[in-house]
Amino acid sequence: MAEKFKKILIANRGEIALRIIRTAREMGIKTVAIYSTADRESLHVRFADEAVCIGPPSSTDSYLSIPKIMAAVEITNADAVHPGYGFLSENADFAEICTEYGVKFIGPKPEHIRQMGDKITAKDTMIKAGVPVVPGDGELLKSVEDGLQQAEVMGYPVIIKATAGGGGKGMRMIAAPEEFQGAWDSARAEAKAAFGNDGMYMEKYITEPRHIEIQVVGDQYGKVIHLSERDCSVQRRHQKLLEECPSPFMTDELRERMGQAAIKAGEAINYEGVGTVEFLVDSDRNFYFMEMNTRIQVEHPVTEEVLDLDLIREQIKVAYGEHLTGMNYVPKGHAIECRINAEDPWNNFRPSPGKITSFHSSKGHGVRVDTHVYAGYTISPYYDSMIAKIIVRAPTRADAITKMERALNEFIIEGVKTTVPFHQWLMKQEDFREGNFDTGWLGQQTLPKG
Amino acid sequence: MAEKFKKILIANRGEIALRIIRTAREMGIKTVAIYSTADRESLHVRFADEAVCIGPPSSTDSYLSIPKIMAAVEITNADAVHPGYGFLSENADFAEICTEYGVKFIGPKPEHIRQMGDKITAKDTMIKAGVPVVPGDGELLKSVEDGLQQAEVMGYPVIIKATAGGGGKGMRMIAAPEEFQGAWDSARAEAKAAFGNDGMYMEKYITEPRHIEIQVVGDQYGKVIHLSERDCSVQRRHQKLLEECPSPFMTDELRERMGQAAIKAGEAINYEGVGTVEFLVDSDRNFYFMEMNTRIQVEHPVTEEVLDLDLIREQIKVAYGEHLTGMNYVPKGHAIECRINAEDPWNNFRPSPGKITSFHSSKGHGVRVDTHVYAGYTISPYYDSMIAKIIVRAPTRADAITKMERALNEFIIEGVKTTVPFHQWLMKQEDFREGNFDTGWLGQQTLPKG
Repeated sequence: MAEKFKKILIANRGEIALRIIRTAREMGIKTVAIYSTADRESLHVRFADEAVCIGPPSSTDSYLSIPKIMAAVEITNADAVHPGYGFLSENADFAEICTEYGVKFIGPKPEHIRQMGDKITAKDTMIKAGVPVVPGDGELLKSVEDGLQQAEVMGYPVIIKATAGGGGKGMRMIAAPEEFQGAWDSARAEAKAAFGNDGMYMEKYITEPRHIEIQVVGDQYGKVIHLSERDCSVQRRHQKLLEECPSPFMTDELRERMGQAAIKAGEAINYEGVGTVEFLVDSDRNFYFMEMNTRIQVEHPVTEEVLDLDLIREQIKVAYGEHLTGMNYVPKGHAIECRINAEDPWNNFRPSPGKITSFHSSKGHGVRVDTHVYAGYTISPYYDSMIAKIIVRAPTRADAITKMERALNEFIIEGVKTTVPFHQWLMKQEDFREGNFDTGWLGQQTLPKG
Repeated sequence: MAEKFKKILIANRGEIALRIIRTAREMGIKTVAIYSTADRESLHVRFADEAVCIGPPSSTDSYLSIPKIMAAVEITNADAVHPGYGFLSENADFAEICTEYGVKFIGPKPEHIRQMGDKITAKDTMIKAGVPVVPGDGELLKSVEDGLQQAEVMGYPVIIKATAGGGGKGMRMIAAPEEFQGAWDSARAEAKAAFGNDGMYMEKYITEPRHIEIQVVGDQYGKVIHLSERDCSVQRRHQKLLEECPSPFMTDELRERMGQAAIKAGEAINYEGVGTVEFLVDSDRNFYFMEMNTRIQVEHPVTEEVLDLDLIREQIKVAYGEHLTGMNYVPKGHAIECRINAEDPWNNFRPSPGKITSFHSSKGHGVRVDTHVYAGYTISPYYDSMIAKIIVRAPTRADAITKMERALNEFIIEGVKTTVPFHQWLMKQEDFREGNFDTGWLGQQTLPKG
């Protein structure tokens, strides 16, 4: 076995920093927290063996500042860096600089991050590996005529997207040829206004898609395994709100096919570390590669609960060179995670930062709460609004839903608004209870008014 | 399937009341809390659907008052009563009165409680069922000569015990015939002084015994199953401080033998409900029936964690007449529970009631904390000093110990002293880490001074 790390610096904050500290401690590895002045009172600072203040609240000057983080690494003599999710976790330059400093970046190699970070390269890689992708070559459309020709080959519906796009802007679904000209004009105008660039490309539009992702792990010796799926179809404007495993839409046969495709994807690039291959799955259970996240994900605990393993531990183990062995990937029971954000769900999910005056976390059999907050903690407006993840496990999906309802009722927080009432509402919806939803479902619902 | 209960009154307080409320809620059953005036601010009162104040702090006038509890049952129209552990949970009269009122007592029949509550009857029942018991007939010793004769047959060492005894008083271990007269005289004198009765009986003395108990469940149709063991050998003056499953002393073969013996014990009396058959196991892995607890136990969560089931749910299900089906009883991984008491471990475990000024519960992967306390809660001197149970599960015993160390380090409580430092000390002891301890081990250790 390779030598363990002696000290890991966690280049992150909040619940994921705490999550990593816990596992590192259980592995006998020292931890270093970094923090901005806004996070002085955070639990990740309190629970780490050492803590280094790296700057003012603004992320650019703290959690995103590579020079400041590398200085903290040098000062504390850490021999590894865990980037968590968000911030620098998918920054290939950061991974490269860590390597140059002789510090292990706990994540994939810089080239993996680059390859999967660029959508066109990622798609090409998948096509070569034989993984199904959303039809469409990503090439710039030359004209409406060009688009009409391609759509004819691809089959309607199609979607046109701004090459410079993101956040849903400059995108139009087109169901028939006669809609093409209008969609083209308005999407280009929107893209021009938003990005100063009206270049467009075309993809097949996947109808009623599920967002189902496969967890993979690769070691340093070319072995890649998959660890089952997570269904993240409950989304609001492409933001995940709830994740579960198994997917209510999954069959054993589909899991095998998607799992093998994800392994092929990982093997194609000799992927190292934990990663997630995200797919869209249509109503006929055809699946299409969407993108690969080259880091640990927010929703990783649902996998941990149904497979009874510690993904952060697996991540650290492959980072220090352990060989992967086969692991069970068949979910036992059912796990659901609700993301609790400091937002007002009945007011367009408007952020609700501020001081938490009273806090009681849900507890008990089958309930896990990953959180960095406590009574007296002030939620900063500078960072992500997620303040807790409530994760339940139970023998069946129906049991998991009632357990989540119980856990949501028990979660007491005062001083800020949270998405707890949203999840309480969600648990009562027939469509949700029956597993009858796609990524567009939530957008079609009428939410209660505040 | 039999009809579910509509409303369960929980005739208890503290963490076990909360524990029961949680499962009842997940089963769609309403709950009624009862509380003494000392428990007004308790979470079990807050989390139940209804709550009835039943009297002043003194248990005799509240949690032990059958008339007051029955009045609460009538007022709230509850159709079942869950007694928890302690208080009235092993009171056959209470079980009988519930039945007379047409209210289901969630536990065994009154005759089971009586049969197992009387040590001589319990032992006779076990002998008839073919379950090994500690040798000794429980008969009054007539004289030293009588004792010497019996000891010769039984084999040394033996122990003589006061028939009126309890709490370790009026007991002497005798290793050889020449010690008999001296032990006889001093034990009788002690018994006379303590109980006004110097009657003595003799048992085989089990050397270096482990306390290993088997969880059983019986349904209303005569079927009894076992759910593996719990090792409770870490004891201070017969008080359990830590429990785990599997026992580090267990073998698959011994589990089979003990499990079958426990099932025989349950079947012999047509046992209904959850129960625990407690055994002493000697260093040669011979086991001897000690007693049967006819209720849910404090340490039940370790079983839940390694078998991935909800024992309170199973208990409620058999109480409303569901048939038991076979359940897995082979522990997966390892679970440990540490009892956190408001006591000063370095000062003879002296109780430390008072107001909790700051509280942060351990959390994260594989950690469960069952507790009724929070920041601002006042621990009453009227009741048991247990304020929380930290339960961990992990793939191996070594992993569970490091996880428990992490969880203990994270458990922050201010305002009262607790047994957290004791458990931190315990986790570091070589004997404990190697599983090398019996019920006498802790008493032989020198604890740190406060």
